[in-house]
Amino acid sequence: MRTLWGGVEAGGTHFVCAVGSGPEDLQAEERFPTTTPAETIARAIEFFHAQRRELDLAAIGIASFGPVDLDPSSATYGFVTSTPKPGWSGADIAGPIGRALGAPVGFDTDVNGAALAESEWGAAKGLDDFVYVTIGTGIGGGAMVNGRLVHGLVHPEMGHMRTPRQGNDEYRGYCPFHGDCLEGLASGPAMQDRWGVAPEDLPEDHPAWELEADYLGSALANIVGILSPRRIVIGGGVMQQPRLLPLVRRKVQDGLSGYIQAPELLDHIDRYIVPPALGRRAGVLGAIALGKRAGRNAPARPEG
Amino acid sequence: MRTLWGGVEAGGTHFVCAVGSGPEDLQAEERFPTTTPAETIARAIEFFHAQRRELDLAAIGIASFGPVDLDPSSATYGFVTSTPKPGWSGADIAGPIGRALGAPVGFDTDVNGAALAESEWGAAKGLDDFVYVTIGTGIGGGAMVNGRLVHGLVHPEMGHMRTPRQGNDEYRGYCPFHGDCLEGLASGPAMQDRWGVAPEDLPEDHPAWELEADYLGSALANIVGILSPRRIVIGGGVMQQPRLLPLVRRKVQDGLSGYIQAPELLDHIDRYIVPPALGRRAGVLGAIALGKRAGRNAPARPEG
Repeated sequence: MRTLWGGVEAGGTHFVCAVGSGPEDLQAEERFPTTTPAETIARAIEFFHAQRRELDLAAIGIASFGPVDLDPSSATYGFVTSTPKPGWSGADIAGPIGRALGAPVGFDTDVNGAALAESEWGAAKGLDDFVYVTIGTGIGGGAMVNGRLVHGLVHPEMGHMRTPRQGNDEYRGYCPFHGDCLEGLASGPAMQDRWGVAPEDLPEDHPAWELEADYLGSALANIVGILSPRRIVIGGGVMQQPRLLPLVRRKVQDGLSGYIQAPELLDHIDRYIVPPALGRRAGVLGAIALGKRAGRNAPARPEG
Repeated sequence: MRTLWGGVEAGGTHFVCAVGSGPEDLQAEERFPTTTPAETIARAIEFFHAQRRELDLAAIGIASFGPVDLDPSSATYGFVTSTPKPGWSGADIAGPIGRALGAPVGFDTDVNGAALAESEWGAAKGLDDFVYVTIGTGIGGGAMVNGRLVHGLVHPEMGHMRTPRQGNDEYRGYCPFHGDCLEGLASGPAMQDRWGVAPEDLPEDHPAWELEADYLGSALANIVGILSPRRIVIGGGVMQQPRLLPLVRRKVQDGLSGYIQAPELLDHIDRYIVPPALGRRAGVLGAIALGKRAGRNAPARPEG
């Protein structure tokens, strides 16, 4: 039987499960709504059990909404820790999946997973130092430094950074924790709340886009200053407006004011701040990439 | 003859050269003003030549003011790249020192060097993920992620991040590049320019300290969100005011608003944000630590 890897994109509204080895080789895929932890996780396990009739699973990767516990030595490793999503605070995701399937499990945040997928197959291929940012329902960022994903104390929560108010903007902000952090000012729901229109329905010439670019440009300039990435991959629903990316690039240059003397920033910003190459599939491909990594790092299993 | 390591703290106003193996073992130390590159570097070389009459130098570390070129594959590796300091823009520091002394050279920013020293012997001992920040004439930060110093595209320039204006502060800012970036609002010269009094002469109950803590708290909260360090070591001249550190700790907690559920942030902030343990010696000890690292990574030399 052929050996493949399993991936679980554990999102706050949907789970996506798949088996495969990369973007050219996704054998099976299933998407279902995120209900209770017990029901949703059981459905994921059932999907992999069914696949196993036809193939061997070397390992499973899980790219999860968060915040999550990534510390392998912690008693709550693989859990969602604190989330406003009912029933999911303190839910163990990695444990039941790993036990039911008897396979090594790789577990990380959804954005770290997507970053890993973009580095394996996408817009950050071959780069040891880059940042992946998504601007959508929330704002999140995953980072690779010296070839390894950044975890540290917990994991990055880039969406909650504070940046200066732009122009005479007085919108109170939408984040329940911080009000006017980046996510509170520039996420999809914040745009909808601020303008009374969803981002996808805002016309290209609406002033919303200039303001959005001001906030995102300021945030990415901070990421450049703090992490010094070799590239920034920026995706998510809000970035679907084609005018936005070129505007953001210009605002990042404005924000840095030529201080960091690197041709990548000064002359080739269009290759420095780029869209993802894997699009909506980055989530589940990230999970598969986490699975491949876990398989490589796991102790050899006895032949079964 | 005993084998030791050499260290050069290459500062914008002074160079400090030393030989030793750590804080308990600094054999010789010399401090002299930073004049022209040729004169200053010659004096450093002369210092090490004199030491060599009595000991063997395994390697030299250089912790330099910047921005610098840290890319080993670059033609200008080991150079100061662009600095307002007359004569030093494009000056090669690592090259002439390495050639004159025929020893492996470790080269990094002053703040990365200090971070390394704090991780070897100081306030971040044993930590693979932490940030070192200094608030003085400038504001800079060095970071360790997964046990390795962060370089990336160039190196972090944390002092130039933008944070929201605090209260009704309307000071224009002191940074020649960005005006009101963090360094422009909260460095020592910015405080002096804003209040007309040097930080060391501002009384403890002056409103300057509350405002300073607001800016630094906001900046450190951004660093927590972007890098997720396990500890922040914060030093520099401005931090000599004893009231400031406890204020900054509280402002970081205020800024994060309990969003990141880690006991280190919620319950033990006094062990999370800490002063350096090596004080003023962090610079030259950082250089020695860089030398030790370079010595370990260098190919074995033929017996001489």
